[in-house]
Amino acid sequence: MNFPKLREEVLDSNLDLVRQGLVLYTFGNVSGISRADGVVVIKPSGVPYDRLKPGDLVATDLEGNILEGDLRPSSDLPTHLVLYNAFPGIGGVAHSHSEYATSWAQARRPIPCFGTTHADYFQGAVPVTQPMTDAEIATNYEENTGQVIVRTFSGIDYESIPAVLEISEDYEANTGHAIVRTFRDIDYSAIPGVLVANHAPFAWGPDAKSAAHNAVIVEAVARMAFFTTAINPDAQSVGRKLHHKHYFRKHGNHAYYGQTKEEK
Amino acid sequence: MNFPKLREEVLDSNLDLVRQGLVLYTFGNVSGISRADGVVVIKPSGVPYDRLKPGDLVATDLEGNILEGDLRPSSDLPTHLVLYNAFPGIGGVAHSHSEYATSWAQARRPIPCFGTTHADYFQGAVPVTQPMTDAEIATNYEENTGQVIVRTFSGIDYESIPAVLEISEDYEANTGHAIVRTFRDIDYSAIPGVLVANHAPFAWGPDAKSAAHNAVIVEAVARMAFFTTAINPDAQSVGRKLHHKHYFRKHGNHAYYGQTKEEK
Amino acid sequence: MNFPKLREEVLDSNLDLVRQGLVLYTFGNVSGISRADGVVVIKPSGVPYDRLKPGDLVATDLEGNILEGDLRPSSDLPTHLVLYNAFPGIGGVAHSHSEYATSWAQARRPIPCFGTTHADYFQGAVPVTQPMTDAEIATNYEENTGQVIVRTFSGIDYESIPAVLEISEDYEANTGHAIVRTFRDIDYSAIPGVLVANHAPFAWGPDAKSAAHNAVIVEAVARMAFFTTAINPDAQSVGRKLHHKHYFRKHGNHAYYGQTKEEK
Amino acid sequence: MNFPKLREEVLDSNLDLVRQGLVLYTFGNVSGISRADGVVVIKPSGVPYDRLKPGDLVATDLEGNILEGDLRPSSDLPTHLVLYNAFPGIGGVAHSHSEYATSWAQARRPIPCFGTTHADYFQGAVPVTQPMTDAEIATNYEENTGQVIVRTFSGIDYESIPAVLEISEDYEANTGHAIVRTFRDIDYSAIPGVLVANHAPFAWGPDAKSAAHNAVIVEAVARMAFFTTAINPDAQSVGRKLHHKHYFRKHGNHAYYGQTKEEK
Repeated sequence: MNFPKLREEVLDSNLDLVRQGLVLYTFGNVSGISRADGVVVIKPSGVPYDRLKPGDLVATDLEGNILEGDLRPSSDLPTHLVLYNAFPGIGGVAHSHSEYATSWAQARRPIPCFGTTHADYFQGAVPVTQPMTDAEIATNYEENTGQVIVRTFSGIDYESIPAVLEISEDYEANTGHAIVRTFRDIDYSAIPGVLVANHAPFAWGPDAKSAAHNAVIVEAVARMAFFTTAINPDAQSVGRKLHHKHYFRKHGNHAYYGQTKEEK
Repeated sequence: MNFPKLREEVLDSNLDLVRQGLVLYTFGNVSGISRADGVVVIKPSGVPYDRLKPGDLVATDLEGNILEGDLRPSSDLPTHLVLYNAFPGIGGVAHSHSEYATSWAQARRPIPCFGTTHADYFQGAVPVTQPMTDAEIATNYEENTGQVIVRTFSGIDYESIPAVLEISEDYEANTGHAIVRTFRDIDYSAIPGVLVANHAPFAWGPDAKSAAHNAVIVEAVARMAFFTTAINPDAQSVGRKLHHKHYFRKHGNHAYYGQTKEEK
Repeated sequence: MNFPKLREEVLDSNLDLVRQGLVLYTFGNVSGISRADGVVVIKPSGVPYDRLKPGDLVATDLEGNILEGDLRPSSDLPTHLVLYNAFPGIGGVAHSHSEYATSWAQARRPIPCFGTTHADYFQGAVPVTQPMTDAEIATNYEENTGQVIVRTFSGIDYESIPAVLEISEDYEANTGHAIVRTFRDIDYSAIPGVLVANHAPFAWGPDAKSAAHNAVIVEAVARMAFFTTAINPDAQSVGRKLHHKHYFRKHGNHAYYGQTKEEK
Repeated sequence: MNFPKLREEVLDSNLDLVRQGLVLYTFGNVSGISRADGVVVIKPSGVPYDRLKPGDLVATDLEGNILEGDLRPSSDLPTHLVLYNAFPGIGGVAHSHSEYATSWAQARRPIPCFGTTHADYFQGAVPVTQPMTDAEIATNYEENTGQVIVRTFSGIDYESIPAVLEISEDYEANTGHAIVRTFRDIDYSAIPGVLVANHAPFAWGPDAKSAAHNAVIVEAVARMAFFTTAINPDAQSVGRKLHHKHYFRKHGNHAYYGQTKEEK
């Protein structure tokens, strides 16, 4: 069995979803990628979490050909693969049906950024995709789920999504991100999650652990945004200044939250 | 003590309701049937779950005559028996007062299908029965509770229940279900649960374990539908295409979710 | 130390509130009475539940004179005593600040009977008291809290409380209750709980264990009534027939829920 | 390692937030102060709670100079320091992103005092700060967060915050508080918590343990106020008499809740 370290990390990240209360039965799946090897490791389909062993995980290439594994991979594998191909900076993908985030997805509403908890992780609203067309559903449904996510992050119509921030001019200097993008793209690394309309959230990150972490944060901000709009239906998204301040406390060259690598 | 295997499965299915947080005190009950023997095994009435032993369960025939057991069966037994007689394809029935599903029942509203979590299990809204008449309440109340459920699944007025899907023309080929039904019946095996108005949900399945599983799913989709309508009062049910896609990922001849029998 | 059995039962009933999630810190209190001895045993004030021992409980007479105990009794003792004096059929009183029931009390709204879970325990809405006057608050506040509860159960204006049922003519024959009451009184044994306006619920029963049990049920029906009205703001209370049917499945001479005494 | 007792208390108070369910991941922080030594002890930034040891806590002076500690202090330290300097009577500060209180902060709404649970701890609404200006965010953000809190407690416009009580004339006699304040100031010791707009709650108290305790209470009253307004959008704050009665049952010279020091 190859890729033992990646298998361990992906297994542990899948279990993070369980520990944080995001999972019912066999719902949800996390994958991780070794870019050097071109290998994706993902949870098998429909196997109870408490029986999962590292060897049960399925290893595939970026086209979905199975390299190792006796079990079927998660049926959502094609969605993960589209994301790995389109977002070169990510190393892990997490999908759950966590209840509040799924409800925002079912309501077809982006999660507005109402406060600093959200701004700490997402540089704007958590967007919701367009509903999929009948043609997209009929053929290659899971792959098309990935495509509709990718489209959400390119050429987005900013006016249509409340509280998505324009990228400030000094963005690259502050974050250290050098990814080429058109002016109106959302940077997928600054908004590491999305709601698939009428389905559920996907999240990602530099590795499988951070992808699962971001899935947990999506659920937390979904809960609080739900309560916030119920308390005050006219609640407003935070201003750009507060949004940037909190995001850059945790991200980029000027971050000062947490310990430096050497200290940890 | 006969039927030891059925007793074990029914006991474990009752405990599934407890483990999944659907139960307060002695609320709820699950039964299972051996069609070959014509024997139903059900939880006794009002006995705490943590003291239940297989021998405490009550075995009856399909008319409710007690075959084995020193305790009274659940007072809801007549409802279970009506369902076993009317729905020949089911092998288990689960009843709970789980809080969100019960609240939809109290609100006398079907649970719309707002997303793929729901579509994975129910091929349409979870319907709500008509309120029972005073005459139905006065005599044979529990049996009439079963009858009002059965009526909900026959001759239903599709217009009156949002998001109940018409059965597609190639339905039998896809699912392998060959049950004879009139055109406008709901297939009870494709919508394995119901809300009894002002009471609570009932769910069923091929055996007691799957009945309890479906009771848990009814509660999960009830929670998410509650949040969804609160976020967006104009939230729409999913389209038929997405609904069918997800349902048939898990059910019928073309299912591709989970492992095949040989793999498991 | 006298009354060891009553002390054990009252302690265990206090801990029931903790086990069922009704308690934060030292909130809440349960008492029990020995009518034969004229002795009330109650939780001491402000002592953490996990340190409570039977000997910490305080024994008083029905005027509140301390018979045994080194600690101060719960500051709500005078409320309990008023209830014991006014409601001769009760043997235990439970008070909690459980969150949903307290919220109905804060909203100054009775909890309507929306379904059979409620009807199984309360023969009508869980009523809410009138707000206390400044004079009632200024002097003998806790005693007056008891008085405002008692007033809620006598000479009640039925029109002002939705879903409070008139007592049916054959009530005594069915229940076996022979308590003398005016026609328009609510029978405190048929509605064993109340919301004190802007404060929290009190519940009672034949003994301390059943008082705590009813406090748990008040919270459960408060939760479900909250969800029900959110799903359907026009949700209606159940009809009288269904209400009586469920109440008398569990109470009175014709009850058929649970096991008979001999069977248990 | 100095200040071992303060370190133990601050560590335990941080863990209180975890035990009471207020914390996700590394969110939140509690500090304590030794006024005699002029030393503040606070949680380090971004370290998981389950690995925290007393020696990981950071000791600083009141200007934020680190006296002891190899790790960075919480990035919110400057906010704590402003509070210690402005509020001479406090000995501990607790900050969390607990979900319901944070949602009220995100909704920019004070938490009204709807009942006695609230009145037991806060002599008025839990106020919400003004949103911070762009200039306050751009420079010394965390220090300015403290300043906006302090401003909330001085020269407040009572009309703008529902249910904030005027200080009664005999206030000092009853409470024993002799703190000099202008007539229209809120007494920070009578309202030991605040919501920072679009951020989250801060709470404080005579020591770190009571600060954490008050943070838990803020969350509990936030939950119940959320439910209360959902049940009854026209719910009213409690009258002044009931408010004072409950507050002074627990605070000041005439308190009679709990045990006297000698009894405990």
